[in-house]
Amino acid sequence: MGKAGLPVSPLAPARFPDLPVIAGVDFASAAAGIKYQGRSDVTLIRIAPGSTVAGAFTRSSTRAACILDNQAKLAQGGDAPDGAAILINSGNANAFTGARGQQSVDAVCAAVAGALDLPQGRVFTSSTGVIGEPLPHERIVAIVGDLARDLDAGGVADAARAIMTTDTFPKGASAILADGTRIAGIAKGSGMIAPDMATMLVYLFTDATVPAAVLQQALSSGLDATFNAITVDSDTSTSDALILAATGQGAGAPITDLDSDAGRDFVTALHGVMRDLAHQVVRDGEGATKFVEIAVTGAADAADAHRVAMAIANSPLVKTAIAGQDANWGRIVAAVGKSGARADRDRLCIAFGDMVVARDGWRDPDYDEAAASAYMRNQDLRIAVDLGLGDAARTVWTCDLTHGYIDINADYRS
Amino acid sequence: MGKAGLPVSPLAPARFPDLPVIAGVDFASAAAGIKYQGRSDVTLIRIAPGSTVAGAFTRSSTRAACILDNQAKLAQGGDAPDGAAILINSGNANAFTGARGQQSVDAVCAAVAGALDLPQGRVFTSSTGVIGEPLPHERIVAIVGDLARDLDAGGVADAARAIMTTDTFPKGASAILADGTRIAGIAKGSGMIAPDMATMLVYLFTDATVPAAVLQQALSSGLDATFNAITVDSDTSTSDALILAATGQGAGAPITDLDSDAGRDFVTALHGVMRDLAHQVVRDGEGATKFVEIAVTGAADAADAHRVAMAIANSPLVKTAIAGQDANWGRIVAAVGKSGARADRDRLCIAFGDMVVARDGWRDPDYDEAAASAYMRNQDLRIAVDLGLGDAARTVWTCDLTHGYIDINADYRS
Repeated sequence: MGKAGLPVSPLAPARFPDLPVIAGVDFASAAAGIKYQGRSDVTLIRIAPGSTVAGAFTRSSTRAACILDNQAKLAQGGDAPDGAAILINSGNANAFTGARGQQSVDAVCAAVAGALDLPQGRVFTSSTGVIGEPLPHERIVAIVGDLARDLDAGGVADAARAIMTTDTFPKGASAILADGTRIAGIAKGSGMIAPDMATMLVYLFTDATVPAAVLQQALSSGLDATFNAITVDSDTSTSDALILAATGQGAGAPITDLDSDAGRDFVTALHGVMRDLAHQVVRDGEGATKFVEIAVTGAADAADAHRVAMAIANSPLVKTAIAGQDANWGRIVAAVGKSGARADRDRLCIAFGDMVVARDGWRDPDYDEAAASAYMRNQDLRIAVDLGLGDAARTVWTCDLTHGYIDINADYRS
Repeated sequence: MGKAGLPVSPLAPARFPDLPVIAGVDFASAAAGIKYQGRSDVTLIRIAPGSTVAGAFTRSSTRAACILDNQAKLAQGGDAPDGAAILINSGNANAFTGARGQQSVDAVCAAVAGALDLPQGRVFTSSTGVIGEPLPHERIVAIVGDLARDLDAGGVADAARAIMTTDTFPKGASAILADGTRIAGIAKGSGMIAPDMATMLVYLFTDATVPAAVLQQALSSGLDATFNAITVDSDTSTSDALILAATGQGAGAPITDLDSDAGRDFVTALHGVMRDLAHQVVRDGEGATKFVEIAVTGAADAADAHRVAMAIANSPLVKTAIAGQDANWGRIVAAVGKSGARADRDRLCIAFGDMVVARDGWRDPDYDEAAASAYMRNQDLRIAVDLGLGDAARTVWTCDLTHGYIDINADYRS
C-alpha cells in the first residue's frame, strides 16, 4: 500500500533500488503531523560546504511561495561555500496562501539555518499536498532540531518515502561513472503531472565537482527529453521543483566543460537518472495500468512534433482506449488532427510496437485486428506516428486513464 | 436508454421538444444496418428550391471525406435554386479512409441527386461513428429510394434520434419570432467534444428569406459563444459539421442586413437556438452528472480569457473534483496557472455560484467549507474566475469527469 492507502501501481518496480551514498549529503525524515498523524511527512537534506546547486521550477503563474523563494535564492547564484539545505514537507502545498505563504517559508528557513548554522539564503524548501490551506509551519519548526540530530548519509530511502502524496511507491535512481563519480536521485509525483520546464519534486545529488553555472547547464539541457516529456493528466502543478546538488567530494576530476569527455559522460549519466525517475513518475500515474511511449517522427519542426506527441499523450479518448486494451488507432488520427500541428492525413503512418496499423491515409492493407488487439494487452506499449512531412521528432511518455484515476481524484483533495 | 444501450443522462431535458414545422424542409430516417442491425442510422433531409445554405466545419487536419466534400461545395456559394439535400449516417465516420472515402461520398451524393432530381453539388453529407473503417456506402445507396418516398415535414424527431451515437437523448431546439419566422434545429454529440470553429453534427432550418452570404454571416457570428464555447473531453472530432438552411417560405420579410431590426431579431433567435443545442450536447456529455458554467472575467485580452476558461473546463482534476462534489478551488488555481495566460496569483478571485471562495491570492476570510460543499451538490454549477487584470471575459460550458466516461470509452470504439 502507498501512503494514501492506495494499492501499489501494477507498473511499479519490484523494489526501491539500492542508491549509492553521496559523500556530503545527509538525510533525515520524521512525522510532523502536517495533515495526517503518524506518517513521515518532513525531510531535511543537508548539503556539505563547497557544493554547488542548480534548480528548475514550474512556470505556472500561480506557483507556490516556496517556488518563488527558491527561484529568488538561486538567482543569486548556485555556489554554497558554507553548505546548503533542503526542507521538504508533504501534506500541504503552501500554494495560494497569500502573504502568509512567504511567512511560513521564512519561518521554516530560519529554523533550518539556525539548526545547521547555514545562511538562510542557502536553505531551499518544497511543499506538496493540498492547495490553499495555510501551512502549519510551527509543526515543522518544532521538529527541525530533531531532524538535524538524525541526519545520516543512508537516509535517502526514508526521504523518498516521506515526500510521497498519492504516490504508491517511492522513486529512486542512480548511476556510477567509470571514474567513480556517483549520482543518485529521488522523486515524487503521480497526479497533476504535465511539467512545464521542471517537474514534480525531484532531488538529485552527485559527488562530482562542478561549477554552479556548468551544473545548471547540465541540468537544464536534460529537461526536455526527461521531465518535460511526460504527462499523466495534462495538469501542471503549482509546486514542481527539481534541485541538483554537487558536493565535489567524489573521485572524479572537476568538470568545467560539458563538451569534454568527462563532461559528456557526466551529462549522459545525469540525464539517464533523470529519465529513469521521470519514467517512474509515469509508472505511478494515478490509476495507471499501462506505460505508454509515444514516438512522433517526420514532423515539419520540433514544435509540431511536440504538439502532436502531447495531443496524443493527453487525449482522454486515446488513454481510455488504451485502458480498454482497444487498438483504436482512429482516436490517434483524431488527436493528430486536433493538435494544431501541420499534418497531411494522406501521409500519416501509425504503428503499435513494430506493427504498422495505418499508412497513406488509411488502414494498412496487412492490418490484423487480432494481432493489434493482442499487442494492446502488453503492460508497456509503444505508439509510433510518422507525419511524413519533415525530420523533426519527439518522444514522450504517458499512462492510460482508468477508473482508478477517477477514484483517486473524485475523493482526494490535492 | 440511448441507442448505444447507455442510461439516459441525468442532465437530459424531460422530453424532446415539439419543434415547429419549417416549410420547405422534409425528413426521412431508416435503418441501413451500417454498424448495427435494426437501428435507424440514416437520415435524408430535402431542402426546397430557392433556399440558401450556410455551414461551419471542423478545422481538424485529419477531417473526414464528407467534410472536405461539403467545404468544396459550399465554396461555390450557398444558393440552392433547385433545392438541396443532406444525407447523414451514424455508425461509421468515413474518416481516415483514404481515396475510398471520397468515392463513398460521391456514390451517396449521386444516388441522392438522382432520387431527388438535384444537382450533385447541392447534396451534402455527414458521417459519424467509428474512424478508419470503410463506409459500406452501398447499404446507404440501397435505401435512398425508400427514404425519398418517405420524406415528411414532421420527421424531425425521428431524424434527431437517427443521428445519435453515444448520445443518450435526442437534441432539438427552436424559436418562433414575432413576425412568424421559424427556426428549428437538431444536434448530436456526447464525446470527442471540443469543437474548433464548428461543432459536432448540427442541422438548423428556418423559413426566413436570407441571401446565402448573409446567412453564413448570421451563422458564423454565433459560433464563438455557442458551439466553440463547450467542451466535454478536450478531444476534437474529425467530422464536426453544422449546416443551416433557409427556405424563404415563411411569413417574414427578406433579411438582407443583419444590423436591421429584423436582422438583429433573427440573429438573436438563431444564436439562442444554437446555444440551447450546445448546452444539450454538454448535458449529454459522456458520463456527465453535472452541467458546469465557467465564467472568466478580468482577463488582459480575449485570447487569455478563452485560455483560462478552457484550461479550467478541460482540467481532469477540476472535472473529477466536481464529480466528487468537492469544493476544491485549489485545482482551479492550478488550472489558471497552467493556462499560459497572464495571471497574477494575488489578484485572483474565485466564486462558486454567488459565494466567493478565494480572493486576493488566498482563501476568502469568510470562506465556509460547509456552504461550499453544499453548493457543489447542485446539478447545475457556476464557477466564476476574475483575473483582476483587464476587461476581457469568456464563458464556456463543460461537464464533470466520472466513471461513466471511462466505462463508455474503454469499451466503445468511436
